[in-house]
This record gives sequence, structure tokens and C-alpha cells, in this order.
Amino acid sequence: MAGMLTPNLPQAATTIARDGNALRILDQTRLPHAEHYLTLATLDDAAQAIGVMQVRGAPLIGATAAGGLALAMQAGARDTDLARAVDLLAATRPTAVNLQWALARMRERLAPLPPAARAAAAWDEAESIWEQDRACNHAIGRHGLELLARLTVAHGRPLKIMTHCNAGWLAAVAWGTALAPVYLAHLQGLQPQLWVSETRPRNQGLLTAWELARAGVAHTLVADNACGQLLASGQVDVVITGADRIAANGDVANKVGTLLKALAAQAYEVPFYVAAPCSTVDMNCRRGADIPIEQRDAEEVRVVQGSSGACRIAPASTACANPAFDVTPAALLAGIITEHAIIAPGALATLMARPAPVEQQASFS
Amino acid sequence: MAGMLTPNLPQAATTIARDGNALRILDQTRLPHAEHYLTLATLDDAAQAIGVMQVRGAPLIGATAAGGLALAMQAGARDTDLARAVDLLAATRPTAVNLQWALARMRERLAPLPPAARAAAAWDEAESIWEQDRACNHAIGRHGLELLARLTVAHGRPLKIMTHCNAGWLAAVAWGTALAPVYLAHLQGLQPQLWVSETRPRNQGLLTAWELARAGVAHTLVADNACGQLLASGQVDVVITGADRIAANGDVANKVGTLLKALAAQAYEVPFYVAAPCSTVDMNCRRGADIPIEQRDAEEVRVVQGSSGACRIAPASTACANPAFDVTPAALLAGIITEHAIIAPGALATLMARPAPVEQQASFS
Repeated sequence: MAGMLTPNLPQAATTIARDGNALRILDQTRLPHAEHYLTLATLDDAAQAIGVMQVRGAPLIGATAAGGLALAMQAGARDTDLARAVDLLAATRPTAVNLQWALARMRERLAPLPPAARAAAAWDEAESIWEQDRACNHAIGRHGLELLARLTVAHGRPLKIMTHCNAGWLAAVAWGTALAPVYLAHLQGLQPQLWVSETRPRNQGLLTAWELARAGVAHTLVADNACGQLLASGQVDVVITGADRIAANGDVANKVGTLLKALAAQAYEVPFYVAAPCSTVDMNCRRGADIPIEQRDAEEVRVVQGSSGACRIAPASTACANPAFDVTPAALLAGIITEHAIIAPGALATLMARPAPVEQQASFS
Repeated sequence: MAGMLTPNLPQAATTIARDGNALRILDQTRLPHAEHYLTLATLDDAAQAIGVMQVRGAPLIGATAAGGLALAMQAGARDTDLARAVDLLAATRPTAVNLQWALARMRERLAPLPPAARAAAAWDEAESIWEQDRACNHAIGRHGLELLARLTVAHGRPLKIMTHCNAGWLAAVAWGTALAPVYLAHLQGLQPQLWVSETRPRNQGLLTAWELARAGVAHTLVADNACGQLLASGQVDVVITGADRIAANGDVANKVGTLLKALAAQAYEVPFYVAAPCSTVDMNCRRGADIPIEQRDAEEVRVVQGSSGACRIAPASTACANPAFDVTPAALLAGIITEHAIIAPGALATLMARPAPVEQQASFS
């Protein structure tokens, strides 16, 4: 259980850990109202946790799928079990490519092994994926920190940073993607101030507010609708979001509502950055239009989770549509903050061709 | 009580009526969960109803303020009472100019009269304002219908129309502004299909869904965040919203979130129209930046109204900002649908210089 939540220390906080022969996760459907942990003992538990968003965020979906495969390999390790487990996990969420990336990496490690060796190897590989996530995100944080430090100097005062959804440590194994630079800036005394958009319908902005409050980072929650007014009135210096899948041309699929912020940021000349590890880049996806957009249950629009449980805001008879993601064209991005560098969207192909890219060790300042 | 709600008939539905010496209103804070009527007996009742949004929508705010002055004149009709009542009502909501317009018109009628004659004249003038609202909105509907009929022919199928907030009959005395063309198109068999955005934080989109369901108009509710994805993916043919104040240069203040839709509509070449009576135009306001933006209570962001009452979605300790409106630049508008014609934003000055503009009689087809 090393590395589970330590209040107020983003550098120590994590969302998933091995607990004997099980996974222990923080149930994100109960936040910010209750801090409740779940034990996932089986493959089905892991698939269910991803599907209902007890864990969410592109990096954490991949990390949990890796752990889910380890649970599956404990229970049975025939080739059909491996294939079935990969398929089951792959079908849980269609948009985030980290899921496919983690499953492909696990399969590559496990398939050549004799069945009896797979459980131990699966845990080893899953923990390696988790460690890589932690290291990548910290590296994203360092590159993003350089940007934020430069912008802070340029503005001559603490930065006002807008984000969307949750791309903090709750969305990853540790640190987060969009929030990693924010946490490092906070630790360096740059005093970043965050605009947190609610992110209806699932209100992941409340996860972001919860994280930031624990870490002592100044933040203000707003309705998603307010973001245009904030950008238009000069109250935002930079926008940083995460990503669920980045196409080869630099188009970015991310939580629905990201596109509206990117368009408004462009209109009012506010730089818009995406922060993501290279495992979020899908070079097999030529452009954003090729990324599948998950359509989720209409009931998510009609019912919101409150402190006293589910709260109905629209009658069950109201027809709803619930696209969970949208695609922001590469042309709207000032840059992509990766674990290697901040790059222009057009430079992805060059970056992805680099050999052995991931820093496995990083100093957790 | 003539003209109160008649289910399924938008042409007969209305939000406010005189009931003896009182006002009867539909409490919009209880919709869509309960249809609950309130009796407003005093000036303070009326000011309170506007302030807490039991009545809302620019035209209805003006209509209720006119009724509130009639209640005040019944109770006392000295000059100081008139001035005090006007000031109290004017302070309830800062952005919608219809409020100032209605109060100025009432004062102009009442101030020259001897105190004893003011109560009767106030009711007469308030009912005249209500009747003008009904007639104006129906005329807006007729002009908008021409547009929708033309677009329906051009697309060769029923139109997909996006709206924001509620600019239907619930936002006015009758018909509504943005929804008046939709209702007439529905009655003509054009089968319009509406995208209704939830409109956090106060969820007026649920009022729109409620209205449309009563009238049998096809509609789909979506999170505000989904609107970029819908516009980008060719699922919207035209956007129509109402307005709370239109500056002389054509910039439009409307419910927060309107700007994000207008920017996305421009990016994806979907025409964006605003529908409003001339009483929403403020020729004393040169441009949008001069329009005061109401900042409402942060608790509106933290708490949502559900079918079982108030539901807390963010801790009371979370800092929130809650701008209630934003300003859409005139350059983003395809046109403004007024009671006289659909005009380019730049043509407002010419339109507003027209003499005796309002049609007092309209046939309610």
C-alpha cells in the first residue's frame, strides 16, 4: 500500500495500488463528497470500475486495465483467458487510447510466457506501467513548469490558468498531466490561480477542485458556460487541459467541452496547451475525425451526484444526448506538453519516431 | 385569469396575469419538477420574485416589474412611493434592459397623474406592456418562421435548431422570443428538432425542455459542454437564442454560455441568430463592453435544484464565480430577429429610429 493517498502532498498522492492479490482504488464517483476506497479482486471488478468511472482519466484507465489483466492472470492464465481479458477491458471505454496502449504492452509481455509465469509477470508489468506514468507525468510537469515560469515573468504576477475536466493526479497514477505543471509551479512559489470548470455532466471539475484544495492551490470553480466570459474579459492567461487521444496530425480528443474553450481561447488570443504523455498519441489515427467518440448513458445528463446521493434534475422522459468527448483541431493548440518537450502539434511524427523515449527515473522534487 | 396556462397550446400559454389586486405567476424555480403558482400581493413580493428568479427572462422581468409598480401604486401613490418603487425594482437585476424599459414607460405614464389615478393607470399600462410583449413575440415568430421555412427547404429535411437557456414563453408573457419561430414552425408542420443546452448553473434549459414537451416539439437535452461537438459534427443547422440587452452596435448580452455557442457556430459556419423585441435594444449603450454583467451568488454553482429539492454538488467551502451573462460580439451574428424584420446588427440604429413601431394587434394563428 505504499504510495496511497497522503493529504496535501501531490508528489505522494496516487490513485491505484496493489494490495496483496487485489487492486485498491479511490472511488472517484464518491468524490468530492466522500473519500471511499474500493478493492478490486477480479477482472470483472476492474472492467466495471472503468466502465462506471470509479476510475477515470486517460492515464488511469490504462493503469487500471493493466492491473485488471494482472487480476485476470491470477485467476487463470490460458491463452484464451488472456485474449478474453484484453477484449473485455478494451471494450470498456472507446476514446482514451492509453487503454489500448497499456493492453498492447501487457499482451506483448505476457503472450510469449508459459501460462504459469503470467501472473507474476503481469503484476510486474502493471507496476512498471504505473511507475512510467508517475515518471512521465513528473517530466510533463517539469516542461510545463518552464512554460508557466516564463509566462509568470511575462505577466509580472501570478498566472490565471484555466483547465477543464480533471487532468490531475486523480486522472493518472500520480501527479496528473495538465495539473503536473501547476503543482510544480505551486511548489516553486509561483502561486498559480486556477479556473476550474465544472465539466458537466459528470462534474469532474469537482475532482480538480478537491485535489487543488488538498494541495493548497488557489482555485475558483465556475460553470462550464462561464469560460467564454472569463476568456473574453482578460481573466485567463493560459489554458491547459489533458487529452484522451491525440491523432497523428495533432488533433486532440478530450473531455467534451474542451473544444469550446479552445475556440474561445483562440478568439481572445489566450494560449491553449494540451498536456499528455506519448502513450496518449495514436499514430494509427491520422486525424481527429477518425477518433471514436464515446456516447454515454443519457441518465448521466438527467441525474447529478450530490452530497446526499443521486439527484434528478431532468425527468426520466426527457430525451438526452451525451457525447463524452470532442475533438480540438491541432490548429487551435499553442503546443503539446509531453514528457520529452513542449512541441508543436505538427512535430508529433518526429517525436514519436524517437527511440526509447521514457525516463524511468525522475527526481520527485 | 384569462390567458393562464393551457397545456399543449403555446399560443395560449402565459406566465403572468392579474388576479384581482394581485399578480399570479408560475414559480419557475420549481420547474420542471412541479407546476406551482404564486400570488404576488406587494411591491416587495414582485421585487423578490425577480431577484430569486421565480420569474426570469428579459421580457418577463420587464413585464413583472410593470405589474410590481401596479401593486405599489395600489398601496400608496405619492411621488416618493413611485420613485422608491421604481428604484427598488430597477435594482433587482442589472443586465436585462427590458426592466429599465418597462419601468421608464410606467413612470412616464404615471408621473403626470394625480396620485389617486395612478393605481388604475398602472394596471392599465402593465396590461398594455403584457399585450405588447405577446404581440411583439408573435411578430418575431412570424419573421423567424420565414427564415426557418427557407432553411428547411434549403436543407430538404426538418431543421436541427440549437438554443440556449430559455427564451420561450416562460421567459416572456407569451410565445417567447427565440422559441416563437420554433412554435410557429411546429404549428406549420415543419417538424423542427431542438438541441436544448442545460444552461448551468440555473438549468433554464430544463424550462425549455418542459415547454417543448408540452407543445409536442421534438427536442434533445444536452450538457452545455456538448454544444461544440454538435456544431463541429454537422448536427446543427441554425442557432437561435434570446437576448437580455443589445447594444447600439449590435453586441448582445445574453445568458452566460451564449458566447461559446456563437464562437463555435462561426467556426463551423452555422448561422447564429438572436431573437428579441426592440425593447431589448439599449441605444444608450454604445457597445457590449458597456453592458453591466450581473455576478450572482456563488451558491448557485454549488447547489442544483433537483426533483427532491436543493442538492449540494460542491462543498460550501469551494470558491466559485458566477457571472450570469456574457457578451456576443455583433460580428458573430447572422442577424437579429425583431418584431419588424430580421436585420443585420449594424442596422439597429436605422430600425430604432422608426416611428411607432409596435404592432398592437396580431392574429394568433
